[in-house]
Amino acid sequence: MSQSAENPAKTPADQSATLDHNIALMLLASFQSQGALRAWDARLTAMAPGSAEISLPYSDKVSQQHGYFHGGVIGTLADVAGGYAANTLLMPVSECLTAEYKINIVAPGIGDTLIARGKVLKAGKTLVVAQAEVFAVQAGVEKLCAIMQQTLFVIDKK
Amino acid sequence: MSQSAENPAKTPADQSATLDHNIALMLLASFQSQGALRAWDARLTAMAPGSAEISLPYSDKVSQQHGYFHGGVIGTLADVAGGYAANTLLMPVSECLTAEYKINIVAPGIGDTLIARGKVLKAGKTLVVAQAEVFAVQAGVEKLCAIMQQTLFVIDKK
Amino acid sequence: MSQSAENPAKTPADQSATLDHNIALMLLASFQSQGALRAWDARLTAMAPGSAEISLPYSDKVSQQHGYFHGGVIGTLADVAGGYAANTLLMPVSECLTAEYKINIVAPGIGDTLIARGKVLKAGKTLVVAQAEVFAVQAGVEKLCAIMQQTLFVIDKK
Amino acid sequence: MSQSAENPAKTPADQSATLDHNIALMLLASFQSQGALRAWDARLTAMAPGSAEISLPYSDKVSQQHGYFHGGVIGTLADVAGGYAANTLLMPVSECLTAEYKINIVAPGIGDTLIARGKVLKAGKTLVVAQAEVFAVQAGVEKLCAIMQQTLFVIDKK
Repeated sequence: MSQSAENPAKTPADQSATLDHNIALMLLASFQSQGALRAWDARLTAMAPGSAEISLPYSDKVSQQHGYFHGGVIGTLADVAGGYAANTLLMPVSECLTAEYKINIVAPGIGDTLIARGKVLKAGKTLVVAQAEVFAVQAGVEKLCAIMQQTLFVIDKK
Repeated sequence: MSQSAENPAKTPADQSATLDHNIALMLLASFQSQGALRAWDARLTAMAPGSAEISLPYSDKVSQQHGYFHGGVIGTLADVAGGYAANTLLMPVSECLTAEYKINIVAPGIGDTLIARGKVLKAGKTLVVAQAEVFAVQAGVEKLCAIMQQTLFVIDKK
Repeated sequence: MSQSAENPAKTPADQSATLDHNIALMLLASFQSQGALRAWDARLTAMAPGSAEISLPYSDKVSQQHGYFHGGVIGTLADVAGGYAANTLLMPVSECLTAEYKINIVAPGIGDTLIARGKVLKAGKTLVVAQAEVFAVQAGVEKLCAIMQQTLFVIDKK
Repeated sequence: MSQSAENPAKTPADQSATLDHNIALMLLASFQSQGALRAWDARLTAMAPGSAEISLPYSDKVSQQHGYFHGGVIGTLADVAGGYAANTLLMPVSECLTAEYKINIVAPGIGDTLIARGKVLKAGKTLVVAQAEVFAVQAGVEKLCAIMQQTLFVIDKK
């Protein structure tokens, strides 16, 4: 319950607004600097104030034993989507680290593409609470495969 | 609360016992068949009835922007350690899928090796509850970096 | 990931539909039989297929040290709202027990009334995943104070 | 991941140490000021640096429809036990609020007494991570019924 002091100028997940161009560039640069995401060919495919979308093509590098997307990959994408959703509200002054998250895997990750969409539910001065949904896409049809709820910790931008 | 019907013959995390050799081979074969874990050079380094340990060397493929182990990698290793801990009690008749997990990242993953140790807390007929701790190892010194609590769903072995 | 076998006849949180009258009476009877909820004067104030709303007036019996709604009371209401949301889809054949839940408290529970609204996100044969939001109401104004994500286990109706 | 700046003088869950008498009195006074816990006849039955134990007698006020301890009551007791475990390390300078928790109910709460034991896993400057186990006691025999993992937010003592 630390989110009593909210940032009054910023609304969680205001998707009608457009993200400042310089902040978008900072987010992309941050994303590209993560070796784990580069190794998977993950991409930051959409950003708006309070929300972010990450996409990932299927490959052997992200698979489990039945040829589906690995549960850990699904969890990672959800975590990253929530984190970048928060960063859209925090940068350039601050950024966030994951304090914790909880994810339910509700269907196997079967498909050619995995998409995670994160949004901020509550933006406090010290903690941000975000949510993400992960979809497996097969031949253009999205199917919900995971739901995540997350707490992020705000730090000064290095 | 589905764990009322317990498997009477199996004790959670009985580390003094030795795992049946054939079950150990099945677990190793299952682990090796996961592309995501092979791509990272993850290894199943210890198994006993009700527990499992996974290790991972640092590389660019598992890094985030500050050169630490990526949070998603930490989460994946915890998830996998809990799942294989459960599988030690379930195989060869059944195996498990992750229904959900919750992880707290309590310190940055700084080190040359990441170790996740999972153990079963409660083994029910349909659901298994497991826990995992993840340690970052630097120059031989382990430091706790994450704690996970997880629910696994038991299915027939394919 | 146990929810692959979905109940084809039932859509999660279909709030446009009306709940069958006999199922509504079963839910109310079940609710009234819970001593903890009676002791607090909690009420089941709305039901539709896949969703449920619980309300609670402020009293000393549900307070913490600063005169707000107690965090445990907030958690209980969220848990119950998710459970009854699931029961709207399960009764009269089956009902559910809470396997686990995770709740973020995002603001203090200050107000005269607490309202929890639960909805089903995924209804499987064995597991149901639900979500709930809890609002503190002061002078008619609702403020979000908690967000919950939950896994329920389906059992035969006794 | 906010717990990098640890309090060097305090060890999580050091149960061999004795709690300062004045801190123990502050914790008891805080506990007694919570109406919800008084209404249930809950008691703070043990404290040590980094740990706390709460007990609760069975009554209609804490029951669900089958005459067991209510799941919300089990969750509340776990939450409170983790919070007071943290407060043993924080008081008299600061105290904590629950940011979030996740609880698995692993067996029905059948018994005459409910006992929750909380302990601190990681004490940071801003966030504390704690764990609790809840036991249902019947005729003197304890049975594990729930496991909780929790994040607490440190605030100045009012």
